[in-house]
Order: sequence, then structure tokens, then C-alpha cells
Amino acid sequence: MRNDLFDSHPVILPPVADDTAIDHAPLAIAPEFRRDPVTGRWVIVAPERSLRPMSLVHAEPHHRANAERVVCPFCPGQEYDTPNEVLAYRPAGTDRDGPDWRLRVVPNKFPATRPTRGDPGRTSGGLFERFAAAGRHEVVVECPEHLPNPAQLPDDQFRDVFRAYRDRLIDLADDHTLSYAAVFKNVGAEAGASLGHTHSQIVATPLVPDVIRLELGGSGDYHTAHGRCVFCDVLEQERADGSRVIGETERMVAIAPFAPQFAYEVWVLPKAHASRYEAATGAMIGELAALMKRVVQGLDRVLAAPAYNWYLHTAPLRSAELPQYHWHFEIIPRTARPAGLEWGFGCFVTAVTPERAAADLRAALN
Amino acid sequence: MRNDLFDSHPVILPPVADDTAIDHAPLAIAPEFRRDPVTGRWVIVAPERSLRPMSLVHAEPHHRANAERVVCPFCPGQEYDTPNEVLAYRPAGTDRDGPDWRLRVVPNKFPATRPTRGDPGRTSGGLFERFAAAGRHEVVVECPEHLPNPAQLPDDQFRDVFRAYRDRLIDLADDHTLSYAAVFKNVGAEAGASLGHTHSQIVATPLVPDVIRLELGGSGDYHTAHGRCVFCDVLEQERADGSRVIGETERMVAIAPFAPQFAYEVWVLPKAHASRYEAATGAMIGELAALMKRVVQGLDRVLAAPAYNWYLHTAPLRSAELPQYHWHFEIIPRTARPAGLEWGFGCFVTAVTPERAAADLRAALN
Repeated sequence: MRNDLFDSHPVILPPVADDTAIDHAPLAIAPEFRRDPVTGRWVIVAPERSLRPMSLVHAEPHHRANAERVVCPFCPGQEYDTPNEVLAYRPAGTDRDGPDWRLRVVPNKFPATRPTRGDPGRTSGGLFERFAAAGRHEVVVECPEHLPNPAQLPDDQFRDVFRAYRDRLIDLADDHTLSYAAVFKNVGAEAGASLGHTHSQIVATPLVPDVIRLELGGSGDYHTAHGRCVFCDVLEQERADGSRVIGETERMVAIAPFAPQFAYEVWVLPKAHASRYEAATGAMIGELAALMKRVVQGLDRVLAAPAYNWYLHTAPLRSAELPQYHWHFEIIPRTARPAGLEWGFGCFVTAVTPERAAADLRAALN
Repeated sequence: MRNDLFDSHPVILPPVADDTAIDHAPLAIAPEFRRDPVTGRWVIVAPERSLRPMSLVHAEPHHRANAERVVCPFCPGQEYDTPNEVLAYRPAGTDRDGPDWRLRVVPNKFPATRPTRGDPGRTSGGLFERFAAAGRHEVVVECPEHLPNPAQLPDDQFRDVFRAYRDRLIDLADDHTLSYAAVFKNVGAEAGASLGHTHSQIVATPLVPDVIRLELGGSGDYHTAHGRCVFCDVLEQERADGSRVIGETERMVAIAPFAPQFAYEVWVLPKAHASRYEAATGAMIGELAALMKRVVQGLDRVLAAPAYNWYLHTAPLRSAELPQYHWHFEIIPRTARPAGLEWGFGCFVTAVTPERAAADLRAALN
């Protein structure tokens, strides 16, 4: 472990202005947003995503095995195999895109969205609405070591992942063509990871994603009706009741949500109202990382090292502090495969109550 | 194959009135609907679902292997192992719940929803809204033969599956506590199937599922603005353009939708406006089945026997004919694992354009 790099200085680079800074050849079919004419849902059609390397295969449900790896593009010495870094935690005086980094953020070589020059060519409406999927797609390489499981990271490296999320959100907000930056992590092939070197992703787009719009809408309605933040009210009731509380620190709390979409779903939220992750202090991020690490270690114990995703729900870029919204992380272990009822109808069935999940995780955390 | 049973008569049984007709012991924790206090999404928490037999395992992505099967509860001779049938296509004069059936619909032994006596105990609101998951959860056992792949069914048996869907919708509409019947099929473990004997499921609930509400809302807005059915307008443009049309019969058409959530997603729709599947004629169901079978055989060829789901989107139970809605089937092969961006943000990324998918499937169908 490279604890000697603990005190390295972050190097924040200016945003990429146009295609010329991206070191991949232009492809015939650029990614585009398309809108479903019935539901209004936006999807991304990104043919070049099919070119990306897949060292994890479908038949490998967990994140432990990666024996078929030959050369990992995220390992030190392979920096030439990724686009130029946009953020690195590395000792002062070391070279950009050279080795000796402790954490590195690079544009995704096989992006779902990417910078475009000028107007993204949005069509004016009609049944079949589409426009270029302008935006950024970045990869947070969380450590130099080829570790598949983030719970193996020492506390300081684990914490730096959450610092990097904040640093990138602050930087991406400077690009006024972007409205939202979706931060997420896939652990294990079953959860969608294609490479076994622990990493996160950031997809920044001109559209606010549907799930965030749904949360903003629901919490906005609640605030209009009650004058309060629905997340704050939920937390007050959860902490008074206790049956779905998994663990807490001074500033943060982890709960099993009342109406989970998946068994052992966990939310981690700040106790005090806060809509913007960018505004989180170093102390909060330290506590967040400590609690997140305990939660994923607990999931590893209770569910035998499951594949999982985590994602940050925060306010859109450049929002003012919103009275109705409350940033939080959601952690979703892949305990069951969603099937026709979930995909076809949006109706999620879980076979584990959140009260049972919270009890199991509380026991595993202590 | 039991073609000698082709002319068997359907036996439609009266709806189950209460728990006493369900032959499983009451369990301590009944399934319940819970509403997420932020988004308003309803989920089902059904602890008894965790008791169901799983003869397909996570590491088995396709539907071909089922070597570990010992006794299949859906095979003839095992009728005692399922609750009493609510519909069967069997020769006149044969016994209910005896052998000699050609297709059989039974309540799910491990239901996500189930009949309750009287008032389901709905709470009056508040942050944590919940009520008993009253409803029905049925299994359509599509053939006596232990076949994993529905494309192996002879044409007449394949068609009877779609007749059974209609017969059950008509019957379930008589229960005025139910608002919607979700009909779907999981093929292969990757798509959520837990048993390898080809079967479909019907989950009928007092709530209209979120995806259907979204479609009814979007198509309703379109109808208000334009006075036309958005699906009819889409079909007109698709058939004029042709690039996303996969195949058609006199009355039915299969397309790759403009904004798919998954690669090789297919929709099959009637050409003429129709909102209620229950009203489909025998001729339409015959053409629907013929086209659906060609499509799944095409997917088997193009994607090497993938796992997939199909589901029927139709109007709520007891709807009048709706001018804005258009029933259809969606078929979703499991070509990629949704990951953090899809789960966390509702943003679906596909690496195959629907134009390419349609071209591949057209070639495979012809």
C-alpha cells in the first residue's frame, strides 16, 4: 500500500473544451440521446461502448476472481492506455499522466457521453427526438493496486474516493452545458463492472436523469405541502424508531429504506439537511467514507462478498442549496435478478424486509 | 408432443374468493405494498418469496442447461405440488388437477401478492404507507413437456399461451378489488427464471404498475395535444420508414423501438388501434403468436439463445376501449447487465442501435 503518498496534493486540471483533447479517434456513430415518444424517457445509444474491454464475464457473479486479466489499463505503467488525466492525487512535482499517483480520474475511453464542439444539434421535437450525447464520462481509478474489492482499501485511500467525487463535481460545474453529474460505482460483473481494478464512474450530461427528477419532484411536492424536507422527516422518524437504522457517526447515518427496491438496500445520509454534495466538509466526507466502508464490509460478511452498486444522489450542478432535497448514497447489492415484473412494470419485489436487513447488518457492523 | 389435445376445451374456473381456496399454510409475514416516501414508488415486500425453489442458479446465464433438476413441480404427475388450477386446456371429461392437460394456470405457491379476506388494511397515509399485497399471482405452465425454451413449442401450443393470457385477463377482471394484471415471462436464470420448465406469470394487484401509469400518462398527454394515439403515429412513421421494422403479418408488426432501454429490444403491436388485449380476436392472437415465435427464434439465432423477458402492456382491468392507449408486447433480451447508471439514475445506455438490431433480426427472420 502506498501510504507514503497520503499527503500528496490534488492536481485539478481545467475542463476539456472540445474533442481535440480526447485521445481517441472519432467514430462513425457518436453516442446520442433518444427520447421515447410514449413515456418521455431519455436513453443513450452509444455504439462505441461495445468496443470496451470486458475482463469480467457474465458467468462470474462476484468480484473476487479476475484470473483472466492480462494487462489492466488502470494499473501503474499503463497510463498511456487511458486518455489524459483530469484529476490526480499524486506527490507534488510528479508528472501528469506519469506513475506515482495515488488516485487518478481519466476520461472513459469508451464513453457513453463525450464532449462535442459547439451546439450538440438538438432537434426541435417531433415523435423521434434525438441529439448528440454531449457530456463527460470519467473513470475514477481509486488506487494503483489491482484490487477488485474497495473494502480492501486502507481508510485514507477509501476516503480519497469520496474526496475525488467532490473535487470532480466542483470542476464539472464550470461547464455550463452540463446539468448533472451522475457518480456511481459498479463492483463485480453481476453489478455491471467490466474491469476488476476498483474504480468509479462519473457521467455528466445536459439532462437531469429521470430518477433524480422523480426525487426532486416528490420531495418538492412534499416541501410545498409541509414546508419541510421529506428526507429530514424520514430520518427523524427512523432514528426515533431504530428498527431500520444500521449505524451512525456524529454527522452521518446508514438506514435500510422503508420501501427498498432490492434486498439489503442501504442509504447513507447526512443527519443535517444538505442538498449539495459539493458543499460537504472534509470532516463529513471522512465520516461518510468511514460509514460507507463499514457498510460494504458488513455486506461482504452478510452476503458473502456480493456484487453491488453505489451511487450518489445529489442536487443538479450549480444548484443553490435546496430546502427540499437531501444528498445521499444508495448501496444496492445484487442479491436477486430483477425479472419481468421489475423490468416490464417497474414493480420491485423484495424477499427480505428492510427491518431484517438492518438487523443483519447491525450485527455485522458491530 | 401432444397434438392429440389440440382441440381440448378450456376450463375456466371461478375466481378464488378468499384464502381458504389457496392450499398453502398462512405465513407469519404476509406480502405487503410499501410506498417510498420520497418518490411515491410502490414496492412489494414478500418474505415468503425467499422460500421458493431455485433450480436455476445465478451462474447459469442461458436457459439451456437445467441438469441439476430433480423433480419439476410443473411436470405432469406433480399436480399435487401446485395449488389448484384456475384454468386448464385439457380434454373434456378429464379431472381438474389431474394429468392430461395441455396448458395449466395455477396460483403461485410462493406469491408476491395473494388473496386476502375483506379489507386489505390500507393505512390512511403518512410517511410510511403500507398495506397488504392483496391480489393474485398465477403461473401459466405452458406445456406438459419439460422444455426450457418456448421456441421449442409447436405453433399451436405456442399460440395457446397467448390465448391463456386473454382468458385469465377476462376472468381476473371479475374481481373488482384488482386494477391491473401484469402478464410476463422470464426465460433463463439471467432473466429471473427460477425453474426451467417454460412458464409465464400473471401478477394482479389493486395498483396500476408505475410503468403502465407512465405510459398511460404520456400517451394521454399526447392524445390531449394531438387527438391521436401516439402508438398509432409511431407505427405509421415506422412502417413508412422501415429501418426499425423487423417483421409483420396482416394484423401485427414487430419493431425495434426508437429509444430502447436494452440492445435488441423488440415491441410487437397490432397495426389497428386497440387498447385492451382482452378484446383481441382469435385471428389476432394467432398472428401475434406466430410473429412472437419468429422473433424469439430470431433472437435465439442472433444472440445464441439469450435469456430474455417478455411482457404484455395493456389497459387496466375493466377499462373501456381507450383512444390513447395501444396494447403491445415488449421482448427484452438480457444482452447486458444494467449497472449503476441504469439502477441509480434511470439512465439506460445501449451499445447497439435499434436500426442495427432490426437489420440483424430481419435477416434472421427471413
